Amino acid sequence: MTDKTSAPRIPLTVLGAGAMGTALVRAWLAAGHPVTVWNRTPARAEALAADGATVAASAADAVAASRLVIVCLLDDATVGEALDGADLTGRDLVNLTTGTPAQGRARAAWAEARGARFLDAGIMAVPPMIGDAGSGGFVFYSGSPGPFEEHRDTLAVPAGTRYVGEDPGFAALHDVALLSAMSGMFAGITHAFALIGPEDIAPKDFAPLLVSWLGAMTGSAHLAAEQLESGDYGKNVVSNLAMQVAGNATLLRTAEEQGVSAELLTPYTELMERWLAEGHGQEDPTGMVELLDLRRGEGA
Amino acid sequence: MTDKTSAPRIPLTVLGAGAMGTALVRAWLAAGHPVTVWNRTPARAEALAADGATVAASAADAVAASRLVIVCLLDDATVGEALDGADLTGRDLVNLTTGTPAQGRARAAWAEARGARFLDAGIMAVPPMIGDAGSGGFVFYSGSPGPFEEHRDTLAVPAGTRYVGEDPGFAALHDVALLSAMSGMFAGITHAFALIGPEDIAPKDFAPLLVSWLGAMTGSAHLAAEQLESGDYGKNVVSNLAMQVAGNATLLRTAEEQGVSAELLTPYTELMERWLAEGHGQEDPTGMVELLDLRRGEGA
Repeated sequence: MTDKTSAPRIPLTVLGAGAMGTALVRAWLAAGHPVTVWNRTPARAEALAADGATVAASAADAVAASRLVIVCLLDDATVGEALDGADLTGRDLVNLTTGTPAQGRARAAWAEARGARFLDAGIMAVPPMIGDAGSGGFVFYSGSPGPFEEHRDTLAVPAGTRYVGEDPGFAALHDVALLSAMSGMFAGITHAFALIGPEDIAPKDFAPLLVSWLGAMTGSAHLAAEQLESGDYGKNVVSNLAMQVAGNATLLRTAEEQGVSAELLTPYTELMERWLAEGHGQEDPTGMVELLDLRRGEGA
Repeated sequence: MTDKTSAPRIPLTVLGAGAMGTALVRAWLAAGHPVTVWNRTPARAEALAADGATVAASAADAVAASRLVIVCLLDDATVGEALDGADLTGRDLVNLTTGTPAQGRARAAWAEARGARFLDAGIMAVPPMIGDAGSGGFVFYSGSPGPFEEHRDTLAVPAGTRYVGEDPGFAALHDVALLSAMSGMFAGITHAFALIGPEDIAPKDFAPLLVSWLGAMTGSAHLAAEQLESGDYGKNVVSNLAMQVAGNATLLRTAEEQGVSAELLTPYTELMERWLAEGHGQEDPTGMVELLDLRRGEGA
């Protein structure tokens, strides 16, 4: 029987029944997996019993119930507390708790010292996207390749999977890097809406222009990547730094005219000016990535 | 004869032969339009004679040569100087010079007082995109609807056209708003590449993830627009401000771990914290647009 619908539905445990944990449990239950759930506040776990989940009395009991243990708690410290008394021997621990790359690496070493295989993960989705294959949501995984390969189909039930390497810090790093880029984009969108705010321009008419323009401009990341790999910021330059600094003056002046604080534009402006002062006016601005390196100039 | 290729190719004048002016002239010449060109530094205009352009000895002569006059100079002050001695009576002036909304409005009043019809424009393209219909480049136009309708086909030769209203400031405002949003996105992309910089992750492998993630997330501008129109930031909230502030702590901590300056993330972080302190934690962060309004609280 190779029919996917008849593939074995392995049992699994989920620690954490916040908004994300709850969405994950529901997705696995809907796909036919037996799920044991534990939450520090029992009411949230008990709400899932009606959907067919088995509620464990303690995190240790929940871990004992399944070989595959999904952890989706508040933060890394909470993970350490919850698993403190649990026997991890022979478990495959998949940590979907939000954290930093260093936390992912330390937690991997901690789990492996306790006899578990470990995968760290970074969820690129919000709870309503979980279990919705068309939502575009996905999860970064990194760490032991073994458990990823073994549980790949199970992990793919709530959201798409993307394995990014054996370094257990890489899932969080990819997650945070994409979220950081998004934060910049959101800052830009916030400023743009503020600029049109005082005018007779409907935000709903403006939004499609913004969406299509930003979508088209994301492609510049490919050129930036090429330049970062070669270390040559002077090739195929379409709009050099000097031109962008000149154009930026119009952005700042317009903000002032419109009565809009330019605070969200300020740090990128300053970064461009510092890089220009270092003699990079004829290059693509991509080289500014180097300016953010706090260890720059600490010697080879 | 309605065949587009046999439509009349009206003569036009282009003032300015910088990189953008040169690209515009070449696009119109290639489409069969007689073009008169003037540039303050004659050599740049003369280079276009080989392509079939007529070079005018002065801006006034160039303006006298055609009813449709395209202006693409360094900045608004340069426009005033170049047109100082020209007779604008009966001319249709289309100003593609980069400027602010207030400059567009003032220049419109100035041109109309001199007997011209006036369109201001904001070019959403770099020179290599001009004349390339597949490049996605386009130009915002605003001001007198008459000349836009009359010259629409001619204006569409170098790049797509998008008319955004009779207010002559709106072309520049739309232009600057999109560029400001892009600046934020570029800041985010710069930070993201800096985060992965010290690691064994190839920028070329990371770029496609960035492009697809940012592309998917641009859609949040539609929800923001709905909320701005209704003034209700509490409906359909997927990830509220309090959650985003909590998540942002992981972004800042990761930057520190990776030895990356968080300067590009700082102002958006501060804006979120101020809005949170004002009691908007359960809402979508869109309402922060109000915080950027420098006239906020100046009374109704």
